[in-house]
Amino acid sequence: MSIPEITQKLLAAKQEKGLSFADLEKILGRDEVWIAAVIYRQASASPEEAKLLVDALELPPIYINELTEYPVKGLGPVVPTDPLIYRFYEIMQVYGFPIKAVIHDKFGDGIMSAIDFTLDVEKEEDPKGDRVKIIMSGKFLPYKKW
Amino acid sequence: MSIPEITQKLLAAKQEKGLSFADLEKILGRDEVWIAAVIYRQASASPEEAKLLVDALELPPIYINELTEYPVKGLGPVVPTDPLIYRFYEIMQVYGFPIKAVIHDKFGDGIMSAIDFTLDVEKEEDPKGDRVKIIMSGKFLPYKKW
Amino acid sequence: MSIPEITQKLLAAKQEKGLSFADLEKILGRDEVWIAAVIYRQASASPEEAKLLVDALELPPIYINELTEYPVKGLGPVVPTDPLIYRFYEIMQVYGFPIKAVIHDKFGDGIMSAIDFTLDVEKEEDPKGDRVKIIMSGKFLPYKKW
Amino acid sequence: MSIPEITQKLLAAKQEKGLSFADLEKILGRDEVWIAAVIYRQASASPEEAKLLVDALELPPIYINELTEYPVKGLGPVVPTDPLIYRFYEIMQVYGFPIKAVIHDKFGDGIMSAIDFTLDVEKEEDPKGDRVKIIMSGKFLPYKKW
Amino acid sequence: MSIPEITQKLLAAKQEKGLSFADLEKILGRDEVWIAAVIYRQASASPEEAKLLVDALELPPIYINELTEYPVKGLGPVVPTDPLIYRFYEIMQVYGFPIKAVIHDKFGDGIMSAIDFTLDVEKEEDPKGDRVKIIMSGKFLPYKKW
Amino acid sequence: MSIPEITQKLLAAKQEKGLSFADLEKILGRDEVWIAAVIYRQASASPEEAKLLVDALELPPIYINELTEYPVKGLGPVVPTDPLIYRFYEIMQVYGFPIKAVIHDKFGDGIMSAIDFTLDVEKEEDPKGDRVKIIMSGKFLPYKKW
Amino acid sequence: MSIPEITQKLLAAKQEKGLSFADLEKILGRDEVWIAAVIYRQASASPEEAKLLVDALELPPIYINELTEYPVKGLGPVVPTDPLIYRFYEIMQVYGFPIKAVIHDKFGDGIMSAIDFTLDVEKEEDPKGDRVKIIMSGKFLPYKKW
Amino acid sequence: MSIPEITQKLLAAKQEKGLSFADLEKILGRDEVWIAAVIYRQASASPEEAKLLVDALELPPIYINELTEYPVKGLGPVVPTDPLIYRFYEIMQVYGFPIKAVIHDKFGDGIMSAIDFTLDVEKEEDPKGDRVKIIMSGKFLPYKKW
Amino acid sequence: MSIPEITQKLLAAKQEKGLSFADLEKILGRDEVWIAAVIYRQASASPEEAKLLVDALELPPIYINELTEYPVKGLGPVVPTDPLIYRFYEIMQVYGFPIKAVIHDKFGDGIMSAIDFTLDVEKEEDPKGDRVKIIMSGKFLPYKKW
Amino acid sequence: MSIPEITQKLLAAKQEKGLSFADLEKILGRDEVWIAAVIYRQASASPEEAKLLVDALELPPIYINELTEYPVKGLGPVVPTDPLIYRFYEIMQVYGFPIKAVIHDKFGDGIMSAIDFTLDVEKEEDPKGDRVKIIMSGKFLPYKKW
Repeated sequence: MSIPEITQKLLAAKQEKGLSFADLEKILGRDEVWIAAVIYRQASASPEEAKLLVDALELPPIYINELTEYPVKGLGPVVPTDPLIYRFYEIMQVYGFPIKAVIHDKFGDGIMSAIDFTLDVEKEEDPKGDRVKIIMSGKFLPYKKW
Repeated sequence: MSIPEITQKLLAAKQEKGLSFADLEKILGRDEVWIAAVIYRQASASPEEAKLLVDALELPPIYINELTEYPVKGLGPVVPTDPLIYRFYEIMQVYGFPIKAVIHDKFGDGIMSAIDFTLDVEKEEDPKGDRVKIIMSGKFLPYKKW
Repeated sequence: MSIPEITQKLLAAKQEKGLSFADLEKILGRDEVWIAAVIYRQASASPEEAKLLVDALELPPIYINELTEYPVKGLGPVVPTDPLIYRFYEIMQVYGFPIKAVIHDKFGDGIMSAIDFTLDVEKEEDPKGDRVKIIMSGKFLPYKKW
Repeated sequence: MSIPEITQKLLAAKQEKGLSFADLEKILGRDEVWIAAVIYRQASASPEEAKLLVDALELPPIYINELTEYPVKGLGPVVPTDPLIYRFYEIMQVYGFPIKAVIHDKFGDGIMSAIDFTLDVEKEEDPKGDRVKIIMSGKFLPYKKW
Repeated sequence: MSIPEITQKLLAAKQEKGLSFADLEKILGRDEVWIAAVIYRQASASPEEAKLLVDALELPPIYINELTEYPVKGLGPVVPTDPLIYRFYEIMQVYGFPIKAVIHDKFGDGIMSAIDFTLDVEKEEDPKGDRVKIIMSGKFLPYKKW
Repeated sequence: MSIPEITQKLLAAKQEKGLSFADLEKILGRDEVWIAAVIYRQASASPEEAKLLVDALELPPIYINELTEYPVKGLGPVVPTDPLIYRFYEIMQVYGFPIKAVIHDKFGDGIMSAIDFTLDVEKEEDPKGDRVKIIMSGKFLPYKKW
Repeated sequence: MSIPEITQKLLAAKQEKGLSFADLEKILGRDEVWIAAVIYRQASASPEEAKLLVDALELPPIYINELTEYPVKGLGPVVPTDPLIYRFYEIMQVYGFPIKAVIHDKFGDGIMSAIDFTLDVEKEEDPKGDRVKIIMSGKFLPYKKW
Repeated sequence: MSIPEITQKLLAAKQEKGLSFADLEKILGRDEVWIAAVIYRQASASPEEAKLLVDALELPPIYINELTEYPVKGLGPVVPTDPLIYRFYEIMQVYGFPIKAVIHDKFGDGIMSAIDFTLDVEKEEDPKGDRVKIIMSGKFLPYKKW
Repeated sequence: MSIPEITQKLLAAKQEKGLSFADLEKILGRDEVWIAAVIYRQASASPEEAKLLVDALELPPIYINELTEYPVKGLGPVVPTDPLIYRFYEIMQVYGFPIKAVIHDKFGDGIMSAIDFTLDVEKEEDPKGDRVKIIMSGKFLPYKKW
Repeated sequence: MSIPEITQKLLAAKQEKGLSFADLEKILGRDEVWIAAVIYRQASASPEEAKLLVDALELPPIYINELTEYPVKGLGPVVPTDPLIYRFYEIMQVYGFPIKAVIHDKFGDGIMSAIDFTLDVEKEEDPKGDRVKIIMSGKFLPYKKW
């Protein structure tokens, strides 16, 4: 993925204004991960949400429209090389089958939706080293028979 | 990944005895996802843990040793085709950059460890359709400078 | 995908008995495509459905259990080489973006589910050459905001 | 696929004018999916069709010629990352073999044409959640023997 | 592609009996390339054709049935390494666009069918070195508009 | 392959002047497929041929030199997505082994040259639908022993 | 990886000023490999470190900010073609399993961190030809059980 | 890489006898990583070394010969999925360019040999967590001009 | 490429009898590289050559026939991991374009044949370290115009 | 590989001045293949060599510096599509294992260096068609044991 130009503009403005994603969360009333997804053009905002975001970053309103479009999603490289993002690939490689087995055990045949889905990132303070906590919640979709 | 023979034996015994992963969790005192990872040879058990597992499945002790070995990990196919596992690939494709941005915002440069790491799968009951909840907790590892 | 052994056994029995998938549809009360998916281990049957299928093919009951398991799904080869299957890959390559644009136009941001999903194959007789009609119906899943 | 410049221009004009693909369908007398395919340069229009489209979007006639050219078709990325488009890849992965088996059962050896082919997208209203209906109709092409 | 067992048996019998594909062409009344395609399980024979072939090779009738099945087609390796087969890949790489341009020039938008298709291999004697002549004939399929 | 700029210029001039490849064939005294290969920079022309071509298209002589250079050949994408070009990939996938077997049968161990090679595209009129005829003629190159 | 523009600017300035990485090591008080990683945008500097580096290269302060950003890491090409870099790929291919076996032997199940990690490059003078010495030191991370 | 059968036999014997690689190092007078490379068939032993190894593991002499053969080297999977081995891939992805720059700075144009090469794994005890130390030493090979 | 069984048998017999390829060269009157190619099933021998080889290795005559067959050629892995073989891949990567430029300079547009081709491996003794000399000789094939 | 701009400039000047690589060989006192490698930025020249080359091509001295830099080497595409370059890939695919076997036979375990390496291209005149002769000479590097 080449980072879209609008993303670069928004991130530069965010840095210049010293705003964190947590600050944006308060302003928009939406989770910071979702807001980051809008900025990276992986999610589409309503015109109101786009306006709040563009205003918070003190950017001109010309950016609002693009943020409401339904983007073509996905990073691009088949296997990510960035170490932080790769770890999520590794988790899928190592724990994919075990997770599948446990989900089928609890729910039957079906999947966790990645669309009717939320994802939170939290900081767990820990004296042995802070921890990153990721909470995903996706609707279970049972396979339909017909 | 061709499923290892020992995995097939253990899963067949588990099904025959009507044991869920949650049942095994109670017997071993370890999380069900981790136990599934041992069964899929993605994690290594202590001799005691392996014995508890093999006994619970009423299998002969010859399986104990193999479960304590340090396995070669990973599913194999670069992009998974199984829909349940693919959704985790998709989450990385769509939300990888946003998660990276939020983690850097909260913690600075570094990654979430996939080794000093736990993963839980929970069932969230919901009248609009039950939800799969995945909780990951990985130690934040800051990039060392030298 | 190497065709699983059970699939080969079932298809051989089906051929020997001269049963079409349409015949099996009548026996099981399920669509022939779904039954074919069970036979290719891409879908899981209930014990009753599995019994009906195995009985119809006059195979011993030992096959029933395997047909109820939740399979690891997917063909395997990244780009299919079989011409019939490739055409579906080509349809995705050529019409993927247009379909995406039309769905977003009609429904907003979201996807067509491939899980809460049915697929029928029909024969359209036509003097200029019969036609294959494929009808897919998948629940629209709007992207959740959080 | 990098979206061609002409596609971006046409889509921007379409959005600005508030026209849906269904509106264009009425204006051109062609199906909306086919029109979207023309806009994405996956299909070629006649000069008359191109003129109707360019006029409807109130764009200058310089765009007409390009829309009549026979394009190089295909999205590009081997496995699509966009979730909506990926689901069609997944359908091919999961249901490709079953569809093949059913088509051979009904028609003998051959394929469904993706050239002598139409594809419609419909909205099925449903109280449990609206559904996307895709209807494909392709001529059956039997393998020629020689 | 691992060569199927039946292919190996048929080729061994053909070699042992000293029959050329041209000999088989006379016996079956079908082109030698098509017969080779049946032997490599890339085409399906009628029961009569299969019987003629198996009888000519003096093999037991158990092989007849398999030769009438509708095979999963394709070599497998994405880019062939065998030099003879690779040259056809190279022809597509080097002359693909020029052929496309000439076909569109002569026929409009559409393709040459690879299904309603024949292919002959001939030996052209030439004092400067014999030549391989390949004649392909495929029905032109114009893109349908809808 | 991104189409080279010179190719785009020549094709645009050809279209504007309403010249077909068959017209160019008459002007240059070379086959239209070879001329198309020169235009797509897959073959190199002599200065005389380049001049004839550039003059026919009424382009300035600055293009002559580039058309005589020995180009880097090949389309680029490993598996083509354009349906017309893909069919040649499919022919190699499906008929590659059978062609290999027949050529070896007729000629012994060796290959058909793709360099000492010609390729013609003809239109076969047919009441059931016109056909594309491709005639390839390549020198047989026997493997040298040493 | 296309080398980022800032990297090119810094390397050009470094060359023009005749500074070695060892010189920069003395100026920044950081290891030369780490400094090179900052220049290639594979590591992030503190504002003070960035200032020292930019000043040493006599570049304007506008570069400081970019060097403190948390970069998207990784070279890009899946298998490197540059011979120097490829040798590290080869070491992983050839000695990966043996290193894994020895590390597990000494430490148990876990990995060497590539984040809590340092890497030094030294020149070992040797009359038979100087040697490159690479010293890596990464924290052992034992797999957590849960 | 599927682990060769001889490797499995040797590792099983090593485990059964409770020998570490460090123990084998003392017995053979060779580094433990090199011995592991012999066992994984990535290096070839002299007959004496092979005999010492096979005797130490109390295996029959039939294994000696195979250990002296010159193996086909390399793991196989293009990008390793095992987390321990992947980290070496990641080090190449992230630090490949910086290492290249520093080596060129110190030595000029050339590479570090992976053949005239040694690699040691050491355990660095550390109260904050033990560290894995990898020391590579490869002859610098300057590019020859001719 | 999995090494064919016949190759393993022949190499084992060659080793047991203590014959070098140079010895076989004297016995067959063919170059040792070509003989190795026959053994690896990359070239086909005449019945006389096959008999000489099988007799020299004191193997039963059943192997003669297989050595005369026209093999499917090529190693298989797209990028070789074996360091010795990889170096030839690297030579193509690094010197491919320069060789192309020099050949075109000397011969015009065309290629070096890999079929009307010989390859010798010689040992050049050198006090600074012996050298491997590879001499390739391939017929220049000029591109045919038509 | 996109051909670097400097390469294009140098090749254009070379063509305009009507200089062959053999002419440059005389001027620089270096082999023409090596000079071509410098021009394609696959090898680095000394300042004197770069000056001789730039002067011979009557280009301004600004190009000298870039030619002395240590380039990132390699063509880029994993499998080359250009027929001339592909033949070297094919030689590696077909003769890689046989060459490996012969080199091991003559030298023991080790490789031919591609760094301490020279490569010449010669024209062998031959009444049956001129031949391209490639002579490679690389130092044998035995595997070090440690």
